[in-house]
Amino acid sequence: MPVITPRTLSGFMELLPAPQQQMERFLQTLRETYSLYGFTPLDTPLVESAEILLAKGGGETEKQIYRFSKGDADLALRFDLTVPLAKYVALHAGELAFPFRRYQIGKVYRGERAQRGRFREFYQADIDIIGDGKLDIANEAEIPAVIYTTFIRLGLERFQIRVNNRKILNGFYAMQGLSERSGDIMRTVDKLDKIGAEKVRDLLVEDVQLSGGQADEILKFISIRGSNAEVLNALEGYAGRNELFDVGLEELKTVTRYLDAFGVPETHFAVDLTIARGLDYYTGTVYETVMLDHPEIGSICSGGRYDNLAEYYTERQLPGVGISIGATRLFYVLQEQKLLNEKLNTAPAELLILPMTQDLTAAAEAATFFRGCEIRTQLYTEQKKFKAKMGYADKLGIPFVAFLGEDEAAQNKISLKNMQTGEQQLLTLTEAANVILEDMRVRGNGKLIRG
Amino acid sequence: MPVITPRTLSGFMELLPAPQQQMERFLQTLRETYSLYGFTPLDTPLVESAEILLAKGGGETEKQIYRFSKGDADLALRFDLTVPLAKYVALHAGELAFPFRRYQIGKVYRGERAQRGRFREFYQADIDIIGDGKLDIANEAEIPAVIYTTFIRLGLERFQIRVNNRKILNGFYAMQGLSERSGDIMRTVDKLDKIGAEKVRDLLVEDVQLSGGQADEILKFISIRGSNAEVLNALEGYAGRNELFDVGLEELKTVTRYLDAFGVPETHFAVDLTIARGLDYYTGTVYETVMLDHPEIGSICSGGRYDNLAEYYTERQLPGVGISIGATRLFYVLQEQKLLNEKLNTAPAELLILPMTQDLTAAAEAATFFRGCEIRTQLYTEQKKFKAKMGYADKLGIPFVAFLGEDEAAQNKISLKNMQTGEQQLLTLTEAANVILEDMRVRGNGKLIRG
Repeated sequence: MPVITPRTLSGFMELLPAPQQQMERFLQTLRETYSLYGFTPLDTPLVESAEILLAKGGGETEKQIYRFSKGDADLALRFDLTVPLAKYVALHAGELAFPFRRYQIGKVYRGERAQRGRFREFYQADIDIIGDGKLDIANEAEIPAVIYTTFIRLGLERFQIRVNNRKILNGFYAMQGLSERSGDIMRTVDKLDKIGAEKVRDLLVEDVQLSGGQADEILKFISIRGSNAEVLNALEGYAGRNELFDVGLEELKTVTRYLDAFGVPETHFAVDLTIARGLDYYTGTVYETVMLDHPEIGSICSGGRYDNLAEYYTERQLPGVGISIGATRLFYVLQEQKLLNEKLNTAPAELLILPMTQDLTAAAEAATFFRGCEIRTQLYTEQKKFKAKMGYADKLGIPFVAFLGEDEAAQNKISLKNMQTGEQQLLTLTEAANVILEDMRVRGNGKLIRG
Repeated sequence: MPVITPRTLSGFMELLPAPQQQMERFLQTLRETYSLYGFTPLDTPLVESAEILLAKGGGETEKQIYRFSKGDADLALRFDLTVPLAKYVALHAGELAFPFRRYQIGKVYRGERAQRGRFREFYQADIDIIGDGKLDIANEAEIPAVIYTTFIRLGLERFQIRVNNRKILNGFYAMQGLSERSGDIMRTVDKLDKIGAEKVRDLLVEDVQLSGGQADEILKFISIRGSNAEVLNALEGYAGRNELFDVGLEELKTVTRYLDAFGVPETHFAVDLTIARGLDYYTGTVYETVMLDHPEIGSICSGGRYDNLAEYYTERQLPGVGISIGATRLFYVLQEQKLLNEKLNTAPAELLILPMTQDLTAAAEAATFFRGCEIRTQLYTEQKKFKAKMGYADKLGIPFVAFLGEDEAAQNKISLKNMQTGEQQLLTLTEAANVILEDMRVRGNGKLIRG
């Protein structure tokens, strides 16, 4: 007597087994790459006191947050990984070594209006480097290397890391006597890609109330294009007129200078003066990453330098730099665009053992042997017709099937069928293991994203 | 102007970086071992419709659940991984292949009264095999192998998997004409370890109102001890008097017969007639696992066979067998008992590069080289005194430090210091990488739990 129709909440991703295998590989690649750069994993609670999460307060966050009470406690689900990091560092500062480099990959919650490709529960995958009082610019120079290696290891080839420096922008607007309107200006300029230069100029004049000359000056500035050297050279033309600008330019030159040493090819990096990111938080270098063949997706990895991580929880000055990948959304987009490599094994096992005898001893022994060789192995246990058993292997996409009948058992061998080629061989267990391990090695070299 | 004192909710585990590294290793070992047995990972939402989660309703669950609304939606945090699995299988049955073998490792929520070692947010690590209509007993025979391999790979040596069969218990009570009181009897008998046989007998007579003869018969039955063969032999003495008992005995014999083929040594397995687990849910084989040197901890891995996973969501009969490890609690206990292997590297990196020059080019190039060798590497970036830099490596427990001054850079070498031995050598980058990789290989063989 089933009483309730099963359903999963809208905006909450729940994958079938094969795509879930791809998602696991995605997250595992992020974990491994972040670790390679000396970031340590953290795992903070998904539930925090609402007072903690909403310390900064304001706007969209408060509307979207999942907030509830239990007994006397006023609780909420985290809506990002930055606020919990701020709390963590403020709370445990005495026990941490600075610079503190951590990554966290975890689910966050935002009760947005559900629509296609928008999620209410989604993974973020963040790295941050937090300094105690100070943090050297070299850290900002290293971040593009983490981004580059992450996407290369995922298998993405055509992407570009775009970098700017908020001090350059703020310094430039100060030169123009426009510091107080810099927020409005940046919000308008941010539309450049979408609406084009002419319309941005109209908005700057009509809505932000700049003179035509000021608007032209801004458009000229953000239109600076070229190789890193060319852009930096053009920026030198503005040097010496504003201290903040000059500091920002020095920082940008440092970030650019170390790119090669950190292994980031110039093809995958560009100084881009149109990039501003959010308004309050970032104070230095800012990063975005775009897929060159899919600019419509927007930035797939963003972040920047900030001067004070945890001002709501501690008087300690904690500057930092960090980036975030919206992993659920990115995975969804890769899937939609059919960019995931279909050659990767998404089956639960490399090998399915099909016993052809009533007694399972030989089959269980074989399964134990293959598992000892680190081969993911399933023993098929059900009493079904041969066709149904093969259909099971087919449906799951298991690459190898081992038949084990009386003949094979008597010889201490199995008949190994390669489901991809149809080839079948009578082999000892060791021979079979070598065939499977070689196939795993070859396919395991494949990457998640098609090149 | 910090306004809020940072804190983490009571009952919510939040680890410092070093123990978090151990926890990551723990969960990774579970993922790898479960995968080896052909279980596929699932990741279902932490939030579900309250109607779905509470379909079964009743008792403790309803009191402990975190339930809240957002807009019109009546939502709740999952309190286990079994109910979400039931929903998943009912919802996606048409797209799954049966037997469906899945693992899930995820956080669940129970608003229990917080006390030491009790968690409100904790990881469960579950595997289940779900059949469509039927599920062969061979699956129940394979489960002890998964438990055995999991704990061996974690490094635990002295543990025992204890197995019983609910059909044997129910059949035995039916033989005694006590079917209707079997629930009360099992709850009483469950106290055997704690209060001893004499007091159990008193309770059976006084509270459950059995005759002295009936109580003695029950105590005699559950006191059957010995090797698997001895216990099975003693049980044969009861055969032929109740059909359910006979089926259960056949099942238990099958489970026991395949142990060796599945690689489980008899030392780590015992038929134990006192084990009953919950009352309604399990219908066949039941499992518990105890640490022989820490019986006070109770079962660290439990589960069993059930006949109908998803009766609240579908008319489809979905029998299954599964086990669960309470990972947060187990990790907490291992930590408390100082059973975690302290030789494992819990630092964020294997290597810290300390540049001794202003320019970081050579140091960044070295970092890029070591990362290319799959060595977790951190470049120390801050302008600090030498002692402070070494203190950083010490505090984090990073095993190797590479000094890179002008002399080293000119020779394209580094001075590699082994922080464990104090030994320092001038080496090429390739030589240094080989030293570090060898150390990683040796220490990497260590297991999470001390043997």
